[in-house]
Amino acid sequence: MSVDIKKLISQMTLEEKVSMCSGQDFWNLQGIERLGIPSVMVCDGPHGLRKQYQGAADHAGIYNSVPATCFPSAAGLASTWNRNLLQRVGVALGEECQAEEIAVLLGPGANIKRSPLCGRNFEYFSEDPYLSSEMAGSHIKGVQSQGVGTSLKHFAANNQEHRRMTIDAIIDERTLREIYLASFEGAVKQSQPWTVMSSYNKVNGEYAAESKKLLTDILRDDWGFQGFVVSDWGAVNEREKGVASGLDLEMPSSYGNGEGRILAAISSGELSEKDLDTAVERVLTVIFKAVDQRKKGADYDRDEHHQLAREAASESMVLLKNEGAVLPLASEGKLAVIGAFAKQPRFQGGGSSHVNPTKLDDVFQEMQTRFGSSLLYAEGYQIDSDDIDQDLIEEAKQIAEQADKAVIFAGLPDRYESEGYDREHLHIPKNHRLLIEAVAEVNSQVIVVLSNGAPVEMPWLPKVQGLLEGYLGGQAQGGAITDILFGDANPSGRLAETFPVKLSDNPSFLNFPGEGDKTEYKEGIFVGYRYYDKKGVEPLFPFGFGLSYTEFQHSDLKLDSSSINDQEALTVSVTVKNTGSAAGQEVVQLYVRDVKSTVIRPNKELKGFSKVMLQPGEEKTVSMILKKRAFSYYNTEIKDFHVESGEFEILIGKSSRDITLKKKVMVSSSNPLYSAISRNTTVGDLLAHPVLGNTAKELLANINEKTPMGGASEEGGDAIEMMEAMMRYMPLRALANFSEGTLTEEMLTTIIDTLNEELQRKVNTSLY
Amino acid sequence: MSVDIKKLISQMTLEEKVSMCSGQDFWNLQGIERLGIPSVMVCDGPHGLRKQYQGAADHAGIYNSVPATCFPSAAGLASTWNRNLLQRVGVALGEECQAEEIAVLLGPGANIKRSPLCGRNFEYFSEDPYLSSEMAGSHIKGVQSQGVGTSLKHFAANNQEHRRMTIDAIIDERTLREIYLASFEGAVKQSQPWTVMSSYNKVNGEYAAESKKLLTDILRDDWGFQGFVVSDWGAVNEREKGVASGLDLEMPSSYGNGEGRILAAISSGELSEKDLDTAVERVLTVIFKAVDQRKKGADYDRDEHHQLAREAASESMVLLKNEGAVLPLASEGKLAVIGAFAKQPRFQGGGSSHVNPTKLDDVFQEMQTRFGSSLLYAEGYQIDSDDIDQDLIEEAKQIAEQADKAVIFAGLPDRYESEGYDREHLHIPKNHRLLIEAVAEVNSQVIVVLSNGAPVEMPWLPKVQGLLEGYLGGQAQGGAITDILFGDANPSGRLAETFPVKLSDNPSFLNFPGEGDKTEYKEGIFVGYRYYDKKGVEPLFPFGFGLSYTEFQHSDLKLDSSSINDQEALTVSVTVKNTGSAAGQEVVQLYVRDVKSTVIRPNKELKGFSKVMLQPGEEKTVSMILKKRAFSYYNTEIKDFHVESGEFEILIGKSSRDITLKKKVMVSSSNPLYSAISRNTTVGDLLAHPVLGNTAKELLANINEKTPMGGASEEGGDAIEMMEAMMRYMPLRALANFSEGTLTEEMLTTIIDTLNEELQRKVNTSLY
Repeated sequence: MSVDIKKLISQMTLEEKVSMCSGQDFWNLQGIERLGIPSVMVCDGPHGLRKQYQGAADHAGIYNSVPATCFPSAAGLASTWNRNLLQRVGVALGEECQAEEIAVLLGPGANIKRSPLCGRNFEYFSEDPYLSSEMAGSHIKGVQSQGVGTSLKHFAANNQEHRRMTIDAIIDERTLREIYLASFEGAVKQSQPWTVMSSYNKVNGEYAAESKKLLTDILRDDWGFQGFVVSDWGAVNEREKGVASGLDLEMPSSYGNGEGRILAAISSGELSEKDLDTAVERVLTVIFKAVDQRKKGADYDRDEHHQLAREAASESMVLLKNEGAVLPLASEGKLAVIGAFAKQPRFQGGGSSHVNPTKLDDVFQEMQTRFGSSLLYAEGYQIDSDDIDQDLIEEAKQIAEQADKAVIFAGLPDRYESEGYDREHLHIPKNHRLLIEAVAEVNSQVIVVLSNGAPVEMPWLPKVQGLLEGYLGGQAQGGAITDILFGDANPSGRLAETFPVKLSDNPSFLNFPGEGDKTEYKEGIFVGYRYYDKKGVEPLFPFGFGLSYTEFQHSDLKLDSSSINDQEALTVSVTVKNTGSAAGQEVVQLYVRDVKSTVIRPNKELKGFSKVMLQPGEEKTVSMILKKRAFSYYNTEIKDFHVESGEFEILIGKSSRDITLKKKVMVSSSNPLYSAISRNTTVGDLLAHPVLGNTAKELLANINEKTPMGGASEEGGDAIEMMEAMMRYMPLRALANFSEGTLTEEMLTTIIDTLNEELQRKVNTSLY
Repeated sequence: MSVDIKKLISQMTLEEKVSMCSGQDFWNLQGIERLGIPSVMVCDGPHGLRKQYQGAADHAGIYNSVPATCFPSAAGLASTWNRNLLQRVGVALGEECQAEEIAVLLGPGANIKRSPLCGRNFEYFSEDPYLSSEMAGSHIKGVQSQGVGTSLKHFAANNQEHRRMTIDAIIDERTLREIYLASFEGAVKQSQPWTVMSSYNKVNGEYAAESKKLLTDILRDDWGFQGFVVSDWGAVNEREKGVASGLDLEMPSSYGNGEGRILAAISSGELSEKDLDTAVERVLTVIFKAVDQRKKGADYDRDEHHQLAREAASESMVLLKNEGAVLPLASEGKLAVIGAFAKQPRFQGGGSSHVNPTKLDDVFQEMQTRFGSSLLYAEGYQIDSDDIDQDLIEEAKQIAEQADKAVIFAGLPDRYESEGYDREHLHIPKNHRLLIEAVAEVNSQVIVVLSNGAPVEMPWLPKVQGLLEGYLGGQAQGGAITDILFGDANPSGRLAETFPVKLSDNPSFLNFPGEGDKTEYKEGIFVGYRYYDKKGVEPLFPFGFGLSYTEFQHSDLKLDSSSINDQEALTVSVTVKNTGSAAGQEVVQLYVRDVKSTVIRPNKELKGFSKVMLQPGEEKTVSMILKKRAFSYYNTEIKDFHVESGEFEILIGKSSRDITLKKKVMVSSSNPLYSAISRNTTVGDLLAHPVLGNTAKELLANINEKTPMGGASEEGGDAIEMMEAMMRYMPLRALANFSEGTLTEEMLTTIIDTLNEELQRKVNTSLY
């Protein structure tokens, strides 16, 4: 570090310190000339820079910005399941930040896709916290390797746009830890983002930007985060509370309001100057880190970045249907290209991540070039309207009738999804749907290419033969789509989210987006495939699913041990072979299943994955390592992740619904939990107790004889089962009612004390 | 009252008073000879007496009891949707109690069927609180008309047998009030049971038997309950807490333990003697009420009661499938009767409600007599085993092959469901299923008659032509089944619960029966059809469904007003016509739908029903009255049921999924709710505010101009929608960040104060 931060702070006036806790304006942090503190700039967004021209300051992507490479948005990037590729995209973004003198790039977003309706899902990775955190972590590593900071956002539980600035997300502790926070936790722990952005919403009654629990106890104390926390733009409610809780920087400037409140709180003693100093120290540390690593005169190769964007887009796309090998397309015959999206592509989402691209592929042009001869084209629908234009549909039918195959570009127009508001349904525009159905009537080789940031319902799916989920592929998506359609690239994307048959299948459906300013996460840990699996609801396409132009075979699943304790790692290896005729990449997915548990757990959870490139006939062995966390659930009693001793299944799959191999491993806890015996401990629990069972049997012998069970055993019949259940579930204290006075309160106390003493003596851990 | 209770209490010693708060033994209350307080007896159960012979004291139906009429259990009785019939059954039970000198009959059970797995569901009425409370209320009226008390049980939220004595049911306040408590509330308010039985479990952390909230605040203060509360047998945890909370009587005796705790608590001052006196007064009041109304030497007509049991059983049964009018059966040709249940019927459930019947119909014998000539019979399966006996199946196939039609008796054997434990799946025994499938292979006119207390999965349903859900029909079910099969009775039962296609479709599936001693009701108000409707999950058979041998037409739906306020009643009338050729009863069902609501509500809720008997060609007009409660939801802010002004739909249906008529009514609240304006009130809410909208527009005019929205409106494009959403959801305080400093904290305070003052001035109700 070029500067002694603590010394610098000691030279600052109270007002100067306070000033460092708010932005200078919309995009710049405060600088102090007399102390040599420069004002540095931060910039949206996760998949491309949105550096606004001076004076243009909005949060909505309305005003234009400096040209930058527009990479696929996160929904697509996550579908690559490719850590290395995410990191390379991060590196490129970092280079562009250096060229534009940006200190911190505002992203990535690691919020979990709770509902497909969330308008900002295109900016988020996944419904699964492990996949999301791996993708976010790789992205951060890439950007920060270039001496530019990231801002992992929006921390936390900002899973809807509806009333996002006032909504209170009510989430139970286990769900928060296992799902919504875990997505951030992995990224923080593996890549230490320079900054974290607190979200707009409340979490369990407290604004995220004022939550000591989130911003200090969990983020810093539990996870070891070192950087500063910045508010989402306008997320600050009462600024002084934020300082005390760990919100170091308010953005954008509140033009004196925030500063006034901090000063007043310090003057009244409500806020300590020490807390203020801590915030200032964190802000200054990042500022000087950025300044120290600034590369004067840095530039980047626009073509190279465009090429990377094309590669990323290609891996982002997910081939969902390919009946009768309708894809890849041949370069001969007659090919119809239909849909206004083919000439006016939707390649990015609306809002703060809206990028002004350095160049923009025209998919129609790319396809024309690749095809080599003239394509038939029909507009099919008006891009700015949901109105049905029968003439356009007729025209499309006509060319489709003449063609061997028809490729239809459809999906969600800008107005359907954006930061700022949520969708209310999962339909594509009616004019897109009718176009697909009309074309499918006259051509039996129809391929639909979707541009959209999140799942849509597809009642028309059975009528088409091919379906490529293109997501929002960035500025090079035109080339990438062409590569895939013509087989120059082999699709290797896998869904990072479940596509439901219908909206109401989604686990949050009953409670999304909540009532007034309250949204209750009553589905708990059952988010995404965790829900569809457990409830036996058939998805349209399951999490992890994606087709290829080749075939892969999994074999030879090996665990390096059949039994571990939770402090040991388990190495899982599996052999993958390309048994088809095209080179391609397979995503080997590893899910873990707790065979039997005293807590409610999903049928399986993703805990590892590996993407592997294979030539035809080639085989490779991939290894994945599982540690304690892979077997754990969050235990709210001990307030920590905990492994319950027992059997676990290691499942290898091509998707969450296509498990190819499995093997069991015994995992034992290094911290088995015992609860203290009380008057409400049941007879059944006690008799089956691993430590106290025998003693309990002796202590209860006399009493048991006098219970109806003692008599019933001589009677026999079906009622025995009922009586056994009655005894099993009976708390010790109730034996008094059923043992003809054999058990007094004094005896009960003695029994309980005896048992607890023995338990305490025999186990090392504390009882809870 | 023959006795001055208060005076009597004043003559009692402390120990005597304490002694009145526990039973004398298993079934008798304490008496005090010196004061002329008799010991009275209470007795299980809801659908028949289980008066145990002296000395036999268990809670499990193991030991035999005095013969009594066994009526259909509650699952069946509720399917009658017949208030009058329930009341007549109640009268008969009351007569039997008088004959046996029983003071209080322990029932009915009004717990809601949260999961079909609950082992005691056969003793409960419905998944719907309105239907359940109407059935319970009618039952109570009947019994109590005979001078015998009832004990409405198990209060509250005892919705599973698994760990029932220690389980903690975690239920949000609205769900508790609208669903689980409402089922008791209606019955208490309309029929004032002499006693209520508190349940084994905890509710939200507190034992029901120790909950002042449940036993005093809600039951007595809110609902006006006048009687005493008795514990379920062995439900008392800390007796002294119960006395303070409103648990007047512990049953059975705890042989001094409970008394000791009460005495100690009074002596330490923890419990006041006044609370004890209150409990004693309540217990004595009921004792003397029973004594005063005792009919010396009462007897009852066993044959008449058997006949009533047959009528009740007949109306209990639900015809679920009747393809090609396979039913009713003719008295000619060859008829095969298959299944051991035909000769050894399962007619009641296991546990405390297990009755020793006065006589027992043999369905095979009844059918033989009615058929007039010899029936073919095959056992089909062994009743006490799940083992598949291929010989029995072959034998069944052989007779089925020869017969014109085959009636198979199948369902759940005793060991599959009982008080005391829950099922873990919804299968019938495999030997029943294979039998059905085998018979269906050789005969295309197969009727299945099910004996079971709760829904089962029916993967075999498409293979059979007829299905009669018999539930547990009591001692006369044999005759009743015969009546229906041969068309001497026209089936008029309607399901009081949803039959799911598969267990995992049930709303509680993810959380039932919970973890350890905690069961979370995360499905909230979405119980039964409320869930299947909203989630769009297709049930096997919907709530309210049932076929008849005739057809009914609904017409001419009339509301006596198109607009009411919530203090007024709405009379709904509808004409029903029997358009078929058999006499029969129709159940007209009335559901209410809130068209638009700020809270999450079900698509529709049952709020009225009427059962009507019609000769062929006859038509009648039925009327149902709706009051405030029919339109209300429970508002947790004002802690009361509340109507949100707006449009409601009145839906008339033959089932929850077969709505025949609908009409809208406007209902206005007499207590519209306004929340106070705060710094976190959103701009959108304020501008749309019915009272403050205009003032807000003026106050915010200057600030709005400076926001990006002010500028964006000149730019246009798709981003406008996003910007509008951003402003709509923006809290007032955040305008500071987006208005270039136009809004100071002082101005914000002034604006909020101005608005609140105006609101307070213009509306009469208090803000919350």
